[in-house]
Amino acid sequence: MPILEMHLLEGRTVEQKRAAVAAVTRALVESLGVKPEQVRILITEHQQENFSVGGITAGHRNSLQESQ
Amino acid sequence: MPILEMHLLEGRTVEQKRAAVAAVTRALVESLGVKPEQVRILITEHQQENFSVGGITAGHRNSLQESQ
Amino acid sequence: MPILEMHLLEGRTVEQKRAAVAAVTRALVESLGVKPEQVRILITEHQQENFSVGGITAGHRNSLQESQ
Amino acid sequence: MPILEMHLLEGRTVEQKRAAVAAVTRALVESLGVKPEQVRILITEHQQENFSVGGITAGHRNSLQESQ
Amino acid sequence: MPILEMHLLEGRTVEQKRAAVAAVTRALVESLGVKPEQVRILITEHQQENFSVGGITAGHRNSLQESQ
Amino acid sequence: MPILEMHLLEGRTVEQKRAAVAAVTRALVESLGVKPEQVRILITEHQQENFSVGGITAGHRNSLQESQ
Repeated sequence: MPILEMHLLEGRTVEQKRAAVAAVTRALVESLGVKPEQVRILITEHQQENFSVGGITAGHRNSLQESQ
Repeated sequence: MPILEMHLLEGRTVEQKRAAVAAVTRALVESLGVKPEQVRILITEHQQENFSVGGITAGHRNSLQESQ
Repeated sequence: MPILEMHLLEGRTVEQKRAAVAAVTRALVESLGVKPEQVRILITEHQQENFSVGGITAGHRNSLQESQ
Repeated sequence: MPILEMHLLEGRTVEQKRAAVAAVTRALVESLGVKPEQVRILITEHQQENFSVGGITAGHRNSLQESQ
Repeated sequence: MPILEMHLLEGRTVEQKRAAVAAVTRALVESLGVKPEQVRILITEHQQENFSVGGITAGHRNSLQESQ
Repeated sequence: MPILEMHLLEGRTVEQKRAAVAAVTRALVESLGVKPEQVRILITEHQQENFSVGGITAGHRNSLQESQ
């Protein structure tokens, strides 16, 4: 521990994901005093139709905005 | 909040997923008195070989039934 | 399936939680065509200090507002 | 219940996953006294760039080792 | 990896939980060929009102059966 | 998004948890270019008997070491 599940919308590059896990791990080492190798991060990437806010998926919201 | 993770078997259409997140969000607005924009839903879709009941995956169960 | 994990802030009554799982289950039965007994919901309740938006926990935000 | 989410690195065969859910289900039946059909397992498979230990993804670690 | 989240209804003893994680870990070592120390298990225990099947919480179902 | 679930062993102070969510949020803002208010973090705290490595819970491991 800590073990983190990080949910992201699809579309990040490998470089962005590597930067994110490195930065989050450092943040936990500094704030909680754990060792880096104790921090495990699992990323799950969600398609635009697999995430909603207010009952509308990100994909649906995009298509509504484009049709305006 | 509320934040929901919804695990589904693969194979739903975009229309079904949009209908599901809209209906679940309304259900939470009415039962808990939250605002729609507070409700976030993350869908994770699982392949037939990535879900089991009773120690047998859905894919395995299907292939056993077809071979009968 | 569907299997849902529902994250809520602490403080809901038993009646609210019973109403929420009943309403969400109906919403999924109607939108996805599943049977009610296929729908499982796991509720996890989070204390005010265990949920953050914008890097500030709900408990911290409350104490900042009270001190204004 | 029990309901399990099992996070694996990508690359397991169907046979390995079927063997794993069967073995884990038996383990829970024997240790907790539940019925097999009460045990549900959801597998999520993560790409090498979607899992990190010590702030370095599995994919990054592999590429560092190959370049040595 | 593997990393498992195991959701249980409240009420298991420490001995049962120790037996369960030992048995599940062995099951994964044998079926997937991983080393024991690679297997991490996170248990989350849910109160009777925080788990529902068919839109009815376990606690509600118990109280309905007792009143019959 | 991003939405994070952060699993911790019990025993962190409120100050540590506030520092952790602030630091992790900043880390994601800088590495992924998101706005702070897009980052939501859910903390789940696990008792010593609800986390295992190598099939032995943290609580069990502690009691074994004390008895040596």
